[in-house]
Amino acid sequence: MSVTAKERLVVIGGSAAGMSAASQARRRLGPDELEIVAFERSPYTSYSACGIPYLVGGLVHDAQSLVARTPQTFREEYHIDARVGQEVHGIDLGRRAVEVAARPGGKTSWEFDHLVIAVGAEPVRPDLPGADASGICGLKSLEDGLYVDELVEREQPRHAVVVGGGYIGIEMAEALIRRGLKVALVERNPQVMRTLDPELGALVSDALGHVGVDLYLSETVTGYETSDGRVTGVVTEARTLPADLVVLGLGTRPDARLARAAGIATGLSGGIRVNHRMQTEVPGVWACGDCTEMFHLVSRQPVSFALGTIANKQGRTAGINLGGGYATFPGVVGTAVSKLCDLEVARTGLNERESQRAGYQYVAATIQSTSRAGYYPRPGHLTVKVLAERETGRLLGAQIVGREGAAKRIDVFATALFAGFTVFDLINLDLSYAPPFAPVWDPVLVAARKAAELVEAGRR
Amino acid sequence: MSVTAKERLVVIGGSAAGMSAASQARRRLGPDELEIVAFERSPYTSYSACGIPYLVGGLVHDAQSLVARTPQTFREEYHIDARVGQEVHGIDLGRRAVEVAARPGGKTSWEFDHLVIAVGAEPVRPDLPGADASGICGLKSLEDGLYVDELVEREQPRHAVVVGGGYIGIEMAEALIRRGLKVALVERNPQVMRTLDPELGALVSDALGHVGVDLYLSETVTGYETSDGRVTGVVTEARTLPADLVVLGLGTRPDARLARAAGIATGLSGGIRVNHRMQTEVPGVWACGDCTEMFHLVSRQPVSFALGTIANKQGRTAGINLGGGYATFPGVVGTAVSKLCDLEVARTGLNERESQRAGYQYVAATIQSTSRAGYYPRPGHLTVKVLAERETGRLLGAQIVGREGAAKRIDVFATALFAGFTVFDLINLDLSYAPPFAPVWDPVLVAARKAAELVEAGRR
Repeated sequence: MSVTAKERLVVIGGSAAGMSAASQARRRLGPDELEIVAFERSPYTSYSACGIPYLVGGLVHDAQSLVARTPQTFREEYHIDARVGQEVHGIDLGRRAVEVAARPGGKTSWEFDHLVIAVGAEPVRPDLPGADASGICGLKSLEDGLYVDELVEREQPRHAVVVGGGYIGIEMAEALIRRGLKVALVERNPQVMRTLDPELGALVSDALGHVGVDLYLSETVTGYETSDGRVTGVVTEARTLPADLVVLGLGTRPDARLARAAGIATGLSGGIRVNHRMQTEVPGVWACGDCTEMFHLVSRQPVSFALGTIANKQGRTAGINLGGGYATFPGVVGTAVSKLCDLEVARTGLNERESQRAGYQYVAATIQSTSRAGYYPRPGHLTVKVLAERETGRLLGAQIVGREGAAKRIDVFATALFAGFTVFDLINLDLSYAPPFAPVWDPVLVAARKAAELVEAGRR
Repeated sequence: MSVTAKERLVVIGGSAAGMSAASQARRRLGPDELEIVAFERSPYTSYSACGIPYLVGGLVHDAQSLVARTPQTFREEYHIDARVGQEVHGIDLGRRAVEVAARPGGKTSWEFDHLVIAVGAEPVRPDLPGADASGICGLKSLEDGLYVDELVEREQPRHAVVVGGGYIGIEMAEALIRRGLKVALVERNPQVMRTLDPELGALVSDALGHVGVDLYLSETVTGYETSDGRVTGVVTEARTLPADLVVLGLGTRPDARLARAAGIATGLSGGIRVNHRMQTEVPGVWACGDCTEMFHLVSRQPVSFALGTIANKQGRTAGINLGGGYATFPGVVGTAVSKLCDLEVARTGLNERESQRAGYQYVAATIQSTSRAGYYPRPGHLTVKVLAERETGRLLGAQIVGREGAAKRIDVFATALFAGFTVFDLINLDLSYAPPFAPVWDPVLVAARKAAELVEAGRR
């Protein structure tokens, strides 16, 4: 290890957050001013984890197309030494160094002046009987996705069981149907998509049924049947489902293990604590992406989300700041969208359960409308639900489920949440209108109107 | 004319603004408290003028489907006496009465306690030689649309010339191509769509060419050739184009003639002056819709727009207020969208010309992106342009031209303009992301990033 006059930035994690931070730092400081070394335990840098269900489903044919930038690109175009297949095992804040294990064998120590921790989230994987059997797959990394893709190709499984009805779960269920498998989905709650309120989640459950997924709601997986170390069945409280492939979509939690072991503070959400500039409490040590604790702008509570959009923005923020610039990341509002065949599912802000937990008293308005003028060919049907604070009319959250044109409408609500708008503000928004794109009152505005009427009625 | 104890509301104009006002007033005051009479000179109430190009183009088959609510519906469900084919010719503020001419013959006088003026806009129609010939059509009303539709059916014209390359002009050009006509479009400016900056307007010009429209840019119509009172050609400075059908899309101006004649104040834009509650300067007299002067929230100037969305919102505001409630309409930001085959065109806020006129110093950032993740099938190409105030980074306006998913993205910018956001605020918006709907950095955010970089560069 040579020690030179210039400073060194070490980045732990070569995905969205870490490599955004590295790239932004490089834009501000040249290779003569800052050496940048990034360690990634998988073989891939900067890939789109959100693209994995589409790779498995056969809509995307080449795993390489999910990789935005390769280690070679980082080396040649950014002068960033991106080392894949190398895992960081420890952070020594006293020596200001990280311990790295390369595959195969070998162990090195790298000193740093600046450190970015961007190790992502770890999947929830309950320790159930048989859980180590082959054929049971998480879906955290591109390697996981390729494993499922190749297993389907090579072993021609007939029965897949998806455990968990969140975004990944429903996207993977559709993908496996596309690949010709019989697919069952087990969800311990009475509805899939717990980020939606139950009556909107029910619309997604219905759509899963239409796609051909056998749904087992309100059932918890208690273990797995195996034979010769391979999974053969999924056991719930109520039944055993045949399975030669099991995909786990049980959510994630921030991976703060390295940080915690080094004595870097984590928060109530389990994520690494950072300020608006992505600084941890240790000088020169930054964290960004799924491993951090985030501030929810509506609940005013610490939260964690594993989302590429947030990871990219936080990485950019960290990189600008450690490169000598100034940028802040104010927080999140919990926006998420997904697609199940032609059904679009979107949400932002707080749902009813979350509003209650945050202590808000609220009104809830649900409307039916269309994505185009009613007389224009093929209008898509939409259900929009809006929550607003009962006393003030302040927007708390929104959910949209529907056909073409549903998902991206959530962005108006997400923007309004950032602005702290009331539903009275929303009504007057000068949103776009032409018959192919919306009714003259956009569904967003119709929902806001109904919520405003409920707020007003409460005042009388 | 009976005068009863209850009050009477007279509404002039039975389209979006007037009938929204009437309906909202009725929701708050029953027939025993308020008599409502609405006069509409055409045979139709509450129809979608924006749907006319789709009627002519054959995408909408039944003119009746453009009518949201008929006079019968208003009478039976709302107890609103909606009288079609009856034109108001004068307002007498001294007697607080309107003079109404019914077709055929007949003239009556109706006293009012409250008056809503919602007479819309009048089309610009230059007084050129031959301009009265048959076959030359404006497109203000549903009657105009039906006239063009029937003329195409009955007379099988071969050559259509559209005069004016704004929203109506390009939509009608496409509609007439669909009906099998040869279509030329004459626009006096170097580009169509003057509400866009020239380089984005050029994208629309190109698309018109691909659709098969012969474009004559930078040419002004000087007159019409006629034969037996029918149009046969359109004369410009440079040539004569054969024409057996001419559609005028030269824009509109607020129709403030009745108001002006009655002594009700109009503003610099030519529209009737109203406050945030839609009150004119005369007690008990309200105005709403295309005939009013509006406040532009970005330029802080008086403006006028003929748009159904604004008319509906203003009508609702007037109706709530005159029914005893409280509502305000804060102003507009100039959002507009259109569709030309599969090209979507959207804008909001100020373009370069408008920013200059408003005295803003600005930076302009234009980016290319896609409507979906690049690896997802069939991503649509988008061009996004953002203007921001040079000193503060405050968003001034945005324009989007592109394929599927372009138009409705403008709503994020429209919402941000209402909030007074800077491009630095925009960058951190928690917008929705999933591969079928957006790249991980939505094109909106990519454009905001580039504009923010220009603002920052100016500070160094």
